Amino acid sequence: MAYERIKVQSLHDKVITAEEAAKLFQNGMVVGSSGFTKAGDSKVVLPALAERAKVDPLKITLITGASLGHGTDGKLAEAGALSKRMPFQVDRILRNKINAGDVLFIDQHLSETAELLHNKNLPQVDIAVLEVAAIESDGSIVPTTSVGNSATFAALAKQVILEVNTAIPMTIKGIHDIYQAEDYPRRNVIPIVAPENKIGRKTIPLDASKVVGIVFTNELDSPADIAEPDTKTTAIAKHILQFFENEVELGHLSESLMPLQAGIGKVANAVLTGFIHSKFRNLTMFSEVLQDSTFDLIDAGKLDFASASSITVSEECYSRVFDHLDRYRDKIVLRPQNISNTPGLIKRLGIIAINTAIEFDIYGNVNSTHTSGTNIMNGIGGSGDFARNAYLSIFVTQAASKGDAISHIVPMVSHVDHTEHDVDILVTDYGLADLRGLAPRERAKVIIENCVHPDYREQLSDYYNRACERGGHTPHLLEEAFSWHINLREKGTMKKDH
Amino acid sequence: MAYERIKVQSLHDKVITAEEAAKLFQNGMVVGSSGFTKAGDSKVVLPALAERAKVDPLKITLITGASLGHGTDGKLAEAGALSKRMPFQVDRILRNKINAGDVLFIDQHLSETAELLHNKNLPQVDIAVLEVAAIESDGSIVPTTSVGNSATFAALAKQVILEVNTAIPMTIKGIHDIYQAEDYPRRNVIPIVAPENKIGRKTIPLDASKVVGIVFTNELDSPADIAEPDTKTTAIAKHILQFFENEVELGHLSESLMPLQAGIGKVANAVLTGFIHSKFRNLTMFSEVLQDSTFDLIDAGKLDFASASSITVSEECYSRVFDHLDRYRDKIVLRPQNISNTPGLIKRLGIIAINTAIEFDIYGNVNSTHTSGTNIMNGIGGSGDFARNAYLSIFVTQAASKGDAISHIVPMVSHVDHTEHDVDILVTDYGLADLRGLAPRERAKVIIENCVHPDYREQLSDYYNRACERGGHTPHLLEEAFSWHINLREKGTMKKDH
Repeated sequence: MAYERIKVQSLHDKVITAEEAAKLFQNGMVVGSSGFTKAGDSKVVLPALAERAKVDPLKITLITGASLGHGTDGKLAEAGALSKRMPFQVDRILRNKINAGDVLFIDQHLSETAELLHNKNLPQVDIAVLEVAAIESDGSIVPTTSVGNSATFAALAKQVILEVNTAIPMTIKGIHDIYQAEDYPRRNVIPIVAPENKIGRKTIPLDASKVVGIVFTNELDSPADIAEPDTKTTAIAKHILQFFENEVELGHLSESLMPLQAGIGKVANAVLTGFIHSKFRNLTMFSEVLQDSTFDLIDAGKLDFASASSITVSEECYSRVFDHLDRYRDKIVLRPQNISNTPGLIKRLGIIAINTAIEFDIYGNVNSTHTSGTNIMNGIGGSGDFARNAYLSIFVTQAASKGDAISHIVPMVSHVDHTEHDVDILVTDYGLADLRGLAPRERAKVIIENCVHPDYREQLSDYYNRACERGGHTPHLLEEAFSWHINLREKGTMKKDH
Repeated sequence: MAYERIKVQSLHDKVITAEEAAKLFQNGMVVGSSGFTKAGDSKVVLPALAERAKVDPLKITLITGASLGHGTDGKLAEAGALSKRMPFQVDRILRNKINAGDVLFIDQHLSETAELLHNKNLPQVDIAVLEVAAIESDGSIVPTTSVGNSATFAALAKQVILEVNTAIPMTIKGIHDIYQAEDYPRRNVIPIVAPENKIGRKTIPLDASKVVGIVFTNELDSPADIAEPDTKTTAIAKHILQFFENEVELGHLSESLMPLQAGIGKVANAVLTGFIHSKFRNLTMFSEVLQDSTFDLIDAGKLDFASASSITVSEECYSRVFDHLDRYRDKIVLRPQNISNTPGLIKRLGIIAINTAIEFDIYGNVNSTHTSGTNIMNGIGGSGDFARNAYLSIFVTQAASKGDAISHIVPMVSHVDHTEHDVDILVTDYGLADLRGLAPRERAKVIIENCVHPDYREQLSDYYNRACERGGHTPHLLEEAFSWHINLREKGTMKKDH
């Protein structure tokens, strides 16, 4: 049965075990792997490589689409198998290794990795490890629940290892739209003018002679953790929906809004869920990830079409989608991440981008990646691809956390991922700050008034007022700009009187 | 003679004096004005408005293409006539007013102002003041030395005042390519695939019934200050040309490179001048501004085509261009700035972007706008439009200045305009740091080794090493991150032992 998925007869003798595949890697190699927000990742070869590295030390550079599931990043990091990792990760063990300086991490816009590889601004990929649903008779491969950078890896890698995952229904073929822009200097128009446009082929082209091993697997993706909306996320969602309603009333937007992008997580989930009982209709998405809420919105008749690079959903939703794929087939598409996240399309389609901040400051600069300017959490992911080219760029965070010992609005962010120039709307559970058309001093007032937790309002106003006394377009007291972060480290709270 | 430039007979009785035009403004109005890097600005109406405001106080919001010439921004600021200004300025008097908090300034990507106006994310323009070479019989207008945001202002303003500048030769008609993308949600592909593609019309459409006044002028643009290359800028240019030569040798680029964008100023001038005696050939530009060096490169047979939004040149070059326009007519084009700077085109064409930094830090974050995090210099201009979507993003600055009391490489930049995610190459007179494929800790070493002035190398290494002891993906000591800037303020130098 499994062999039927390999439609190139001559590749049948390439079938090996994961352990055998793991032996194909050499120290210092650059490895490109499928996997985007835990979807469509390597289920057995990379874990087998981690096992091998425990007894037979070697280090690789690992490039993926985005995050991997099944703790694979942690296993590789723990085995000391990673020298360098890009462009994204969400693994606790790997994160600690990165922050300890044991693994080098490149925190990259998700649209850019493929570009950098094609432009030879990164070293060539030695081996690609790609999960596929099948190998077609022309040697091309059918991706699974994500496309990520797999088309780029397939094109550029010297050798390819395929994981044929028999747990993926063959009916998945056709939900992918594989298109790669021409290499420079011959690049032409990418002809997408609406989220539903399909412009490519159903499978990823692959030169079968590069295949050095095929491994069978039968394991699903790590399920997404779905957090039910809580008081804070519900409040944030309410503020955003209210804002959209106002924009519709003002005639700035129609009830279909513009194509939506939402980062992963609780807040995005709460906002999208909020649309179900709203007056908005004929919505579309042009995003990175299709989450549970995407399919809930389709089922509710609210969402007409959703374009992304992966499907990352709960176990329940996974069954719903793959047991009834015909219900969704014409309403979704998965694209390479250098298409789903490419600047020109995001600008052309006029995306409303909703992403999560770790903290933002009184002038609207956003930190999405670092705690106290130094330790990385996950990475910028696609938030920059979308925020900087969006029609409307919205960032959300809770106003305070850890028993309100941490304020997520600070005098100056300790790391900047999205500059004041690129941020339109900031939202916390306390309210929404509309920064459009505001100068820095105006922004500070609106942010302090609308977004800050009451425990920190006076303290932040005090900073701002004293900074204004010294003057400036963007008034700051450099000697105090990070005093909140330093207080947190030394006293466990950002509150000043502690 | 002058009236011949107004080919709509019924508009002849709209001719008024600048002083009469100045009376058409009311307190609180939003004014949109032509002018981009001092080219094609209002020569008499805005100065007359400044005069009026001295005796008859009123305040306006002034939106332009970019900077104005003839000290007009300073005159308006000094007269108290500006409440808000966007998206760019370079005027000493206005800058002081902004930093004192007397004028509100929005520091905006130059591609975005028109977008924000079309999307109704900014208030409607009440009056547009546009310099033109002529008014055509269909009411459309011929721009002069810049296009800037004039097509947007003409389309959206309630009323229009035209300055017909008889100093501009009528032969200028035809060097402009006026194209505006459709408003959302009907936006289509902008069909430019090479710098030389012309896709629009020669003149800006205008509803003649909106014209409330026409004023004749006969004055040229403020000439560009051309600084001859000095030791530092020559060194920077040498490092960049060497880098390009290496990339050609490695087969990453051809001898035509990719379309070039260069910010205004000494360094860009030195780099472009450096191409004249290089082996590079058939170069193209897709930039904001055509400078003296652009025309020198065309004359030297090195540059095949240059696209931008304005011509800002010295007096000598101005005569050369306009006395021999036929020599250049097929080699240049001026576009609206929301086309010259639009993200999708910059990505599609694969631009090599060279822009100037005020300072950068050991991890590659760039500050283009603020001194000591607080006072603005000019603004981000188009540097972000290009840097974040470029094929290669290069930033340059001198390593140290003011008798080496200021190091332009610091532990942490005091304001971030371009994040670590968007910067590929950093260059000073001491050398070039190639950050492609490097993690933060690798970047720090390469930057300190290659770019920093010798007086600061040890001091910066010391900061970095002590930060690494505390750990982190991007090691920082928040309590010391701005100590160099604070030292400068308190002791007049960033050197630690002072």
